[in-house]
Amino acid sequence: MSAPQAPQRTEVFRVVDVIRKKRDGLELSRAEIGDLVAGYTSGKIPDYQVSAWLMAALLRGLSRAETAALTDFMLHSGQVLDLSNFSAPKIDKHSTGGVGDKTSLILAPLAAAGGLVVPMISGRGLGHTGGTLDKLESIPGFQVGLSVTRFREVLGECGCAMIGQTAEIAPADRKLYSLRDVTGTVESPYLICASIMSKKLAEGIDGLVLDVKTGSGAFMKTKEEAAFLAELMVETGKRMGKKMVALITDMDQPLGLHIGNALEVEECLDVLRGRGTEDLHQLCIELAGYMFLLGGRSKTIEDGRQLGEQLIRSGQALEKFRRMVELQGGDSAVIDDPRRLPRARHSMDIASASGGYVGAIQCEMVGTACVVLGGGREKKEDSIDPSVGIVLHKKVSDRVSAGESLCTIHYNSEARAVQAKKLLDRSYQIVDSPPEPRRLVHEIIPAAGAA
Amino acid sequence: MSAPQAPQRTEVFRVVDVIRKKRDGLELSRAEIGDLVAGYTSGKIPDYQVSAWLMAALLRGLSRAETAALTDFMLHSGQVLDLSNFSAPKIDKHSTGGVGDKTSLILAPLAAAGGLVVPMISGRGLGHTGGTLDKLESIPGFQVGLSVTRFREVLGECGCAMIGQTAEIAPADRKLYSLRDVTGTVESPYLICASIMSKKLAEGIDGLVLDVKTGSGAFMKTKEEAAFLAELMVETGKRMGKKMVALITDMDQPLGLHIGNALEVEECLDVLRGRGTEDLHQLCIELAGYMFLLGGRSKTIEDGRQLGEQLIRSGQALEKFRRMVELQGGDSAVIDDPRRLPRARHSMDIASASGGYVGAIQCEMVGTACVVLGGGREKKEDSIDPSVGIVLHKKVSDRVSAGESLCTIHYNSEARAVQAKKLLDRSYQIVDSPPEPRRLVHEIIPAAGAA
Repeated sequence: MSAPQAPQRTEVFRVVDVIRKKRDGLELSRAEIGDLVAGYTSGKIPDYQVSAWLMAALLRGLSRAETAALTDFMLHSGQVLDLSNFSAPKIDKHSTGGVGDKTSLILAPLAAAGGLVVPMISGRGLGHTGGTLDKLESIPGFQVGLSVTRFREVLGECGCAMIGQTAEIAPADRKLYSLRDVTGTVESPYLICASIMSKKLAEGIDGLVLDVKTGSGAFMKTKEEAAFLAELMVETGKRMGKKMVALITDMDQPLGLHIGNALEVEECLDVLRGRGTEDLHQLCIELAGYMFLLGGRSKTIEDGRQLGEQLIRSGQALEKFRRMVELQGGDSAVIDDPRRLPRARHSMDIASASGGYVGAIQCEMVGTACVVLGGGREKKEDSIDPSVGIVLHKKVSDRVSAGESLCTIHYNSEARAVQAKKLLDRSYQIVDSPPEPRRLVHEIIPAAGAA
Repeated sequence: MSAPQAPQRTEVFRVVDVIRKKRDGLELSRAEIGDLVAGYTSGKIPDYQVSAWLMAALLRGLSRAETAALTDFMLHSGQVLDLSNFSAPKIDKHSTGGVGDKTSLILAPLAAAGGLVVPMISGRGLGHTGGTLDKLESIPGFQVGLSVTRFREVLGECGCAMIGQTAEIAPADRKLYSLRDVTGTVESPYLICASIMSKKLAEGIDGLVLDVKTGSGAFMKTKEEAAFLAELMVETGKRMGKKMVALITDMDQPLGLHIGNALEVEECLDVLRGRGTEDLHQLCIELAGYMFLLGGRSKTIEDGRQLGEQLIRSGQALEKFRRMVELQGGDSAVIDDPRRLPRARHSMDIASASGGYVGAIQCEMVGTACVVLGGGREKKEDSIDPSVGIVLHKKVSDRVSAGESLCTIHYNSEARAVQAKKLLDRSYQIVDSPPEPRRLVHEIIPAAGAA
């Protein structure tokens, strides 16, 4: 894709007029959005005008065309990778984030094992949710800060590579995100869409599978909010010529059983060995199926799922993971001996106060408990303890006796464990009869399947 | 009134939480608003957070309690005059601005002649509307930049004084207004109310008569908008213990016949001599009547009106004006010889293209024509030509023949006159039969009369 050109115009661009236009609920032209993004990125437009515009955009909303234009100009504020030398389809997956959501570590090698190229650029933990980079860094030696040249080399050698955002990628997004964070303008589906899509499309991909989380552990608490964001991202990607599909998936309880960086890597290895937790395994197979479908590696979603299952059964996915860890400087011995991963010094069981069934798990509280233990950041400057976390023994609908362990805290600081325990005690709700089961995948957008 | 105290609290004030709260339409506490105003005035809270908050406040609105708290903290960000040594009631008038709106120059001496103290702090022209300070400065030598000490002396000697805002008065408003001007957050009745009332209440007054303009030459185009703002200001003033009344008055055509600084002073002198234009005279009598009523100088509005008429007829109002001009350094000889006021070198008549009746005058366009002539500022840095302006010969409902003069342009620059003529040609609408007359005073708030 070539860099977008602002249409020829004669009018003078006045920032305050653009702010007023959005404030009054009118649609901005592509040129006005382009001038706004370029002016802000170059420093010509000050923070105080952009923050007023962001608040107006949050409260008034953006049209589909405005959202696509914003995404496009943010994307082209920086470098867009040209991966056209790779003949295989370049397909990535993005999740809006949750608790125990570790699918990226499984999907990148799994999709690469199936013949796709997966140039995955990921983020760090945000609020109560974990981050892929933090999880990868719990593998001793693993480097997430590769140069673009090395990123290409790793992709060429094993089909997948996982790095962090570089300074060259979507600088407009980095600047806008910092401003949104301190001006109460994070929670807009339009701005979230532009932020995610500008970074993902900078990877030079052909298609993207979106995993939009909903429930008590997700940023989008309701299915409606999640579906709205999903549709926005799918349409934005399609307008930019990408193959797109979004899965609305459940985050009303943690995904899998492990929460915490090294603990989650351990659980990923289990899944890649074909013996992982049921929900985590099943979601990875669904997402891989859609990646294969978008990339043309399978004709139906059922074929895609079967390909995913077979690549796990045969050990090919695990071998891809091993190769990627080696190429990115990590200690690949952890793959056969997960005890080499960082381990917390102490553990403590959380016992159920009563018998019955698990009616619900307040998922955001579990995520916060992990942050409290040191597994996430309360402030940006905080460092992370990769070894701490929580292992669940009971999930929603499971039967439990009074005094039986609901989960185990793995910790290094007694004081932090006490705080986390308080949160975990409150997060489990015990009821007399099992609740109606929630589906793992609520909805596919667009409904018919692949794009 | 003593400076407001923030209630005792233990929570930490986080600006972003206050922004999010207003963004989500929730009501802020008095303490939160106090922290916001204090933090911004002291420079601890940056522009970009306040501009996001202002946009949220504009789009979500403020409650009556929030508006009063905002006004109160803005007022007490600076000096509040203590005029308690004056035993007479201290009553002021404020207009939201219009075209040819010169009532302040008549009302200050008229009310002072009736025994009130009028400590009037005024502004300059804004957009298409004129400003009291600009008009006063067309009197050779007139000083609007008095010290507070001299302001008190003039008040003591003649009962009225007219100055501009000083650095000590409501500094929070000055800072907020500059930010609103460049972030599209001017047009909020809540923010307008807080801005006006914080400055007016700094005058140390007991009561305030508001003249809220509506129509094609006003900032509030509809009666509903004007009434909303008027009610907001009346309630805010009452919450702060002030006697308040608001008149919703017509600005669908210019007030009086003269537009332009020196030309307006000349028309004021006519009114003070009892031979001014009917609508201007009548509005001044109405406003003076309410000032006397609020200040307890008359028992009924009809008594107040009669007092106003008598003070003009007797020449006492004109003598007060003469005394004020002398005390503020102006050339009081202009009062008996208005030809001493600055006069434009050229004049040009605008002839009617057809015969009939004046159906409407696009009032904002007439105001803009005066700005174009040099009588107002297009940019803040522009200097003003006090001599230029427009004298109307025909107003709405007047009969006009084809070729008859509608108005006369007084100008110094041919090029500017040509531009102004284009606007004036378009601003007069000639129709076949006279339109329904509009009332000069549309509504009194509160409806029962004085507070």
